[in-house]
Amino acid sequence: MSKKTRVLILTGSANDAPKLSGAREVLDELGIPFRFHVASAHRTPERAVRLVEEAERQGVQVFIACAGMANHLAGAVAAHTVLPVIGVPLSGNAMGGLDALLSTVQMPPGIPVATVAVGGARNAGILAAQILATMDATLKRKLRAMRRKMKRKVEATDGKIGI
Amino acid sequence: MSKKTRVLILTGSANDAPKLSGAREVLDELGIPFRFHVASAHRTPERAVRLVEEAERQGVQVFIACAGMANHLAGAVAAHTVLPVIGVPLSGNAMGGLDALLSTVQMPPGIPVATVAVGGARNAGILAAQILATMDATLKRKLRAMRRKMKRKVEATDGKIGI
Amino acid sequence: MSKKTRVLILTGSANDAPKLSGAREVLDELGIPFRFHVASAHRTPERAVRLVEEAERQGVQVFIACAGMANHLAGAVAAHTVLPVIGVPLSGNAMGGLDALLSTVQMPPGIPVATVAVGGARNAGILAAQILATMDATLKRKLRAMRRKMKRKVEATDGKIGI
Amino acid sequence: MSKKTRVLILTGSANDAPKLSGAREVLDELGIPFRFHVASAHRTPERAVRLVEEAERQGVQVFIACAGMANHLAGAVAAHTVLPVIGVPLSGNAMGGLDALLSTVQMPPGIPVATVAVGGARNAGILAAQILATMDATLKRKLRAMRRKMKRKVEATDGKIGI
Amino acid sequence: MSKKTRVLILTGSANDAPKLSGAREVLDELGIPFRFHVASAHRTPERAVRLVEEAERQGVQVFIACAGMANHLAGAVAAHTVLPVIGVPLSGNAMGGLDALLSTVQMPPGIPVATVAVGGARNAGILAAQILATMDATLKRKLRAMRRKMKRKVEATDGKIGI
Amino acid sequence: MSKKTRVLILTGSANDAPKLSGAREVLDELGIPFRFHVASAHRTPERAVRLVEEAERQGVQVFIACAGMANHLAGAVAAHTVLPVIGVPLSGNAMGGLDALLSTVQMPPGIPVATVAVGGARNAGILAAQILATMDATLKRKLRAMRRKMKRKVEATDGKIGI
Amino acid sequence: MSKKTRVLILTGSANDAPKLSGAREVLDELGIPFRFHVASAHRTPERAVRLVEEAERQGVQVFIACAGMANHLAGAVAAHTVLPVIGVPLSGNAMGGLDALLSTVQMPPGIPVATVAVGGARNAGILAAQILATMDATLKRKLRAMRRKMKRKVEATDGKIGI
Amino acid sequence: MSKKTRVLILTGSANDAPKLSGAREVLDELGIPFRFHVASAHRTPERAVRLVEEAERQGVQVFIACAGMANHLAGAVAAHTVLPVIGVPLSGNAMGGLDALLSTVQMPPGIPVATVAVGGARNAGILAAQILATMDATLKRKLRAMRRKMKRKVEATDGKIGI
Repeated sequence: MSKKTRVLILTGSANDAPKLSGAREVLDELGIPFRFHVASAHRTPERAVRLVEEAERQGVQVFIACAGMANHLAGAVAAHTVLPVIGVPLSGNAMGGLDALLSTVQMPPGIPVATVAVGGARNAGILAAQILATMDATLKRKLRAMRRKMKRKVEATDGKIGI
Repeated sequence: MSKKTRVLILTGSANDAPKLSGAREVLDELGIPFRFHVASAHRTPERAVRLVEEAERQGVQVFIACAGMANHLAGAVAAHTVLPVIGVPLSGNAMGGLDALLSTVQMPPGIPVATVAVGGARNAGILAAQILATMDATLKRKLRAMRRKMKRKVEATDGKIGI
Repeated sequence: MSKKTRVLILTGSANDAPKLSGAREVLDELGIPFRFHVASAHRTPERAVRLVEEAERQGVQVFIACAGMANHLAGAVAAHTVLPVIGVPLSGNAMGGLDALLSTVQMPPGIPVATVAVGGARNAGILAAQILATMDATLKRKLRAMRRKMKRKVEATDGKIGI
Repeated sequence: MSKKTRVLILTGSANDAPKLSGAREVLDELGIPFRFHVASAHRTPERAVRLVEEAERQGVQVFIACAGMANHLAGAVAAHTVLPVIGVPLSGNAMGGLDALLSTVQMPPGIPVATVAVGGARNAGILAAQILATMDATLKRKLRAMRRKMKRKVEATDGKIGI
Repeated sequence: MSKKTRVLILTGSANDAPKLSGAREVLDELGIPFRFHVASAHRTPERAVRLVEEAERQGVQVFIACAGMANHLAGAVAAHTVLPVIGVPLSGNAMGGLDALLSTVQMPPGIPVATVAVGGARNAGILAAQILATMDATLKRKLRAMRRKMKRKVEATDGKIGI
Repeated sequence: MSKKTRVLILTGSANDAPKLSGAREVLDELGIPFRFHVASAHRTPERAVRLVEEAERQGVQVFIACAGMANHLAGAVAAHTVLPVIGVPLSGNAMGGLDALLSTVQMPPGIPVATVAVGGARNAGILAAQILATMDATLKRKLRAMRRKMKRKVEATDGKIGI
Repeated sequence: MSKKTRVLILTGSANDAPKLSGAREVLDELGIPFRFHVASAHRTPERAVRLVEEAERQGVQVFIACAGMANHLAGAVAAHTVLPVIGVPLSGNAMGGLDALLSTVQMPPGIPVATVAVGGARNAGILAAQILATMDATLKRKLRAMRRKMKRKVEATDGKIGI
Repeated sequence: MSKKTRVLILTGSANDAPKLSGAREVLDELGIPFRFHVASAHRTPERAVRLVEEAERQGVQVFIACAGMANHLAGAVAAHTVLPVIGVPLSGNAMGGLDALLSTVQMPPGIPVATVAVGGARNAGILAAQILATMDATLKRKLRAMRRKMKRKVEATDGKIGI
């Protein structure tokens, strides 16, 4: 696997950056090079488009777009690429993330967004890796190892935890 | 009031056109010139932006953007103009329009969308007229006349209707 | 632009005043004269109507009405004017603002309320300015400048923020 | 019990009249004189207030207010009387009546609306009768008879119905 | 007005007692004698029925029943009396009171519960007073005085509060 | 297995009877004797209690209670027995059964209701059988056979169905 | 009653263990032997199946499965046994447990899960006991005693608590 | 691109097959070989696992799992593979698909499901193609051609459609 950026993570607001550490952790752990940018579908629409188009030219293969409220970022990214776009709805207001979830997942026919759970940055990172692993045997092995580690962790907990 | 187009109505899908007749009726009734285009935030994003920018250059003063599901059209229009953008969430799937409502109204700080009720095309037309009427005494008089007519209609119904 | 009040902000409860600072900030920043009053659709209905009618006579051009729970203030204001009324649903109870949102936005045909996001006071201020700017080139320039500033702020953040 | 109107039923739209037959039936059955008017909180606000104030002067004792969407009629009536106001949220759009329910029931402190189920016109009629019966022994007997009849009807059904 | 208890307040759980102070305050302020009991529709169903029947024999005229979650208390009380029953849905879990609201208000035809807002104990007290005032001119005057006081309080706030 | 009734099915309204055929079918198929009665928690509360207490004396082991709207029947049954009570929320109004689901499942601590899906009468029958099978090896075998048949049916479908 | 484990409690995540103390308390109080394991439907699916199958062979009679978010654990357990499976939806994210509730209760025909309230671990324990008590007179007596104690506690509170 | 199956489509119930035609159409149009099977996470859990494991051995690269209600199929598939799993929530009951959406998307950390809109079978097909296209230039060209065709279709509609 080259050092070329394979995943571009975009978020609509700098305030949301701390909610995305899960994606960073899992991509680092799997050795997948990624870049992170703040770009808003509403406040910097041209910039968001430009980042997507540049990234695609430079060989980025998967996008992760995160935003709260009426989360249009993932949809806006998806409208400008045929690469897979993963959407992460973010909670943070009184709506419990339902607004962001529906705004991310309910895309019209033609332009899908691969939506994960509200606040599911870590799963977005894993899903990006799974997509890349469809044709990358080494990465697939790493994902399987991570899965086994996760299983062992659950099993190790058992017996030590009471209710 | 000149014949120049003052309101641009955009909808995300041709299928939604019949749901917008309420806007047409009220704008025709008030003598406000408008144009209608099909443009999708996701399927034709550049076209949507181009229509907005052209319209603004040609003197359009208010936008009405309608779409169902994850309704990003109104937000996408709002991101490319500082003119008022009225959003009409459309129902049509099993979600009852809640997805379209939240996707339209829950805009992040900086880029408002003036949202009306689910399926509220007629109110979108009236709101557009109200905005134009803030500095148009003739139009204001027409709106007041329309309001009085509406009142009389309610009053005329009363006494003829039983339960 | 004269010093005459152009925007009237009404709120249903004095307790909600701190939630409206976003509207004040943006109107001050754009140099739009506004007034603020506490008036409840339910506890002081006549007073709410009187404030609306007086304001309209004195040349106010846009109303912003804020309230939580079964937010009827915006609707009550809209029923007494043909000027544009912006509704701000306020959260503050266990319902997450869904009650206020639906009570504000789901207006029946004939009387629209231009609804912004739950807690969206800042966007209400911007929307008011956008409405006024439809025929005010200076204000339009200020809105564009504000928009550019917002873009630059997002761009400046980028690169300094990591995840 | 005199022939004087004791209950005033108001509805926001003539279209809703058929949904209110349950209230008429039960008030007729119990011999409670009532009047019915169409009056909208938004389209005919002054008329709604006038009907309430006239009714109160003429000795009406309970109000029933019905409306769909952002149902402000019950709240508007309640704001102009200290008599009990019963609110009937009406369904009829894709929201399943949730908008009307929250707009009716989530009244702020000081101005209650006695809300019944979505579409609960019959229960509104019964509740009006129960309120009047607090000091009317004859009416209380009639309500108890109605309750017994209802019980017998359930019991009579049993045994004849299979699954 | 005699010293005889006119309102019986029931709550499903002792933990909810602090949420009911609003009802006490308003009944005390209006000089309406009331009693308060803890009685659960599920844990002490016979006791709940017995309290209702005893209260009715002793001349209680209105019931207020409060409970959270699947709030059956108001419905259970309503099933055993033809007197008006006011239901107060209580919040307190992650559902934001929506469970309690629907469990209280969505009563089947025949047995209404006069439902107030989630957490609306004060409004339940006022509604009880309004019901009693339908045939009590003194109480009606007190309610009007309370309403005026409330108006004056809103008006007094105005001008002192800024945003 | 004796011919003694082991399951009592109660429904709040005769209108709901057709929605319960799934429970009958599965109990018949498994040879579990059951009885069916119409009994409302609100319209015939004493009767509901009497049916529960009689049934318990006669050896009934499981209750199935079905009702729509503010479904209190299951809770009312559960309040009068320590036998397992299965609740079936029924849809039928504009709320999509959410009201019945929350009213059935959100029981307070101490009095559980074993809730199945909205409209899940067949699953209620199976759950009743599973409860009885905890100490009935013959019934457990029948349940396993039914499960295998269900599996084979899914497998048999596969290959014959295309998309 | 033997010392053999009769109830198996499974939870999807060790973090949820503290939310299950209510189940432990009630099973201990009733002298019902139980075991507790951490097993995830998604992270350790084979392990979850193996624990269920082993438990069934060893004579476990009831399962309690707890999990948050898209709670598949109860359904996964139910798919591998014909013994009764009690599902406990757990809250813990911004969705208020609605996701876990719907994921637990809305099971397709054929595989029921006996769902209790969000966070209803104590009720899950009681329901397990009720199921076991259908053929265990001693346990039924204990459940009745617990019920009486609960009643007395409510009654004892009354009179000491004011509002 | 070889003729080897690259996408496996699974659905929980044969009844849902007609809702999946959108996925078939798009995969056929793009020349992506796929297979379709009926397999239920609850009724045929082992079979679902076996189909997934066999498919993975045979070189399938993406899974599409569709199901309504408490949609566990996508999660169950995801638990047994590190390949990308696309989940399609299906509507079909009174809940409007909200149950299926939350059950599909709200996966716990570690096991993502790439969720598309309720009823979004066509988008699931497109997303599968996008994933495969990350390393397949021919497929990427086809996707771009499809996108252009879609754009032209929207543009061609415009001007022919009125409101």
